Amino acid sequence: MGMARAIEMAKEFGIGMVSIKHSNHFGMSAWLVQQAIDEGMMSLVFTNSSPALPVWGGRSKLMGVSPIACGAPAGDERPFILDMAPSIAARGKIDKAIRQGEKIPTDWALDSEGNMTDNPASALEGVMLPMGGPKGSALSIMMDVFSGVLSGSAYAGHVTNPYDPSKAADVGHFLVAIKPDLFMSLEDFKARMDYLYQRVVSCDKMGGVDRIYYPGEIEQIMRDERMKTGIPFTRGEIDALNEEAKLVGADTLNV
Amino acid sequence: MGMARAIEMAKEFGIGMVSIKHSNHFGMSAWLVQQAIDEGMMSLVFTNSSPALPVWGGRSKLMGVSPIACGAPAGDERPFILDMAPSIAARGKIDKAIRQGEKIPTDWALDSEGNMTDNPASALEGVMLPMGGPKGSALSIMMDVFSGVLSGSAYAGHVTNPYDPSKAADVGHFLVAIKPDLFMSLEDFKARMDYLYQRVVSCDKMGGVDRIYYPGEIEQIMRDERMKTGIPFTRGEIDALNEEAKLVGADTLNV
Repeated sequence: MGMARAIEMAKEFGIGMVSIKHSNHFGMSAWLVQQAIDEGMMSLVFTNSSPALPVWGGRSKLMGVSPIACGAPAGDERPFILDMAPSIAARGKIDKAIRQGEKIPTDWALDSEGNMTDNPASALEGVMLPMGGPKGSALSIMMDVFSGVLSGSAYAGHVTNPYDPSKAADVGHFLVAIKPDLFMSLEDFKARMDYLYQRVVSCDKMGGVDRIYYPGEIEQIMRDERMKTGIPFTRGEIDALNEEAKLVGADTLNV
Repeated sequence: MGMARAIEMAKEFGIGMVSIKHSNHFGMSAWLVQQAIDEGMMSLVFTNSSPALPVWGGRSKLMGVSPIACGAPAGDERPFILDMAPSIAARGKIDKAIRQGEKIPTDWALDSEGNMTDNPASALEGVMLPMGGPKGSALSIMMDVFSGVLSGSAYAGHVTNPYDPSKAADVGHFLVAIKPDLFMSLEDFKARMDYLYQRVVSCDKMGGVDRIYYPGEIEQIMRDERMKTGIPFTRGEIDALNEEAKLVGADTLNV
């Protein structure tokens, strides 16, 4: 609803901004970017989130793994959809390194004493680090300033974890929609975006790379595939859903 | 002038956007962010630039080392000023590794064949890589979409290098100013920013860190220092300036 209002204002004024306070985890930012694209609009989607990363130089969690997201519509090619976290690596990559008995790069995580470590088991007891050191840290603070400080929501480490039901999460969001055909026709804008797509994906490839993907393209390909073939579930997920179904007296899945 | 117009619109509408085309290198983005802060405004400052980085998966230069910049005013504490390039490391760090006979991390650069390398001399013959792989690459594309595509300037690798006098650089910029006291008083906003500053710099420190700096703080401290003690020049810089002075018949510096 926030993005719909931002789009409405952008249609009239060229740009529309919506600030949201006292919110919860709003799911995937790219979903809001897609709403704007469906209306032929560019967008910026910022949010803050509960503490998960230290600021650069710190050792305790203060800032969120708050994604910066934005997008722009294209013509015949894929739209530009960016939705990226300021963390250097997903925690799952540490689990994988443990399973495979490998070391991790020293800039991924701190151990429980606050020192850099290449031992994945020690990393799991400590904290993950922001991407690019001070750069990811600053992006996370940027999300907090535009989403939390401006709106009047919780910020500076006070957003509640979405899995903690004891109090409201009090997340803040910052949504901007921009009319792309302010300085040219929409047709020209879309043709320019198509050209950008083509230039990016046809760049000379580095060693070991078969294909270059545009931001958001891997997810769009995955979505297209799953709209056709469905979403695969593991045995454990099916069993858990069947347990829930029994609790409420619904039919179970016999697969 | 662009930021002044964005601020003027933000005072009336809450948010103001200015798109600039056919421009040149506009210097340091933080300078425009500071203009907004001086007027008590939040800002976003995006620009594109001439090719210097491959997109992720690519090996030839396509996107610029285009900084993402933004800021917000504070009260008694330092304002928030972010101005960061999407590159993983400045080229100067490679020169330093060569001088010190050290290897570089394999994610910093490609050699001239387009393969990752830990040899700084090979890296100098190749290209520097974006920060965080696909993340820095996507930020650079984001700068190109909002600055180049939207404005009608050059983009997708066609911005001319600022040191090439043969044709116009045709850079695009995207400037946004936001009134911080839309949902609270300016006094409250500034107090919230001061609290964020205090929380960030007083975070528990990681091993080997004496002090945590806020985004933009190191540069502000440097500026304060140099306003007092002046800007140090090397012998070579003074000699070069004296040569120029002689050419135009101006007094030379006798230091």
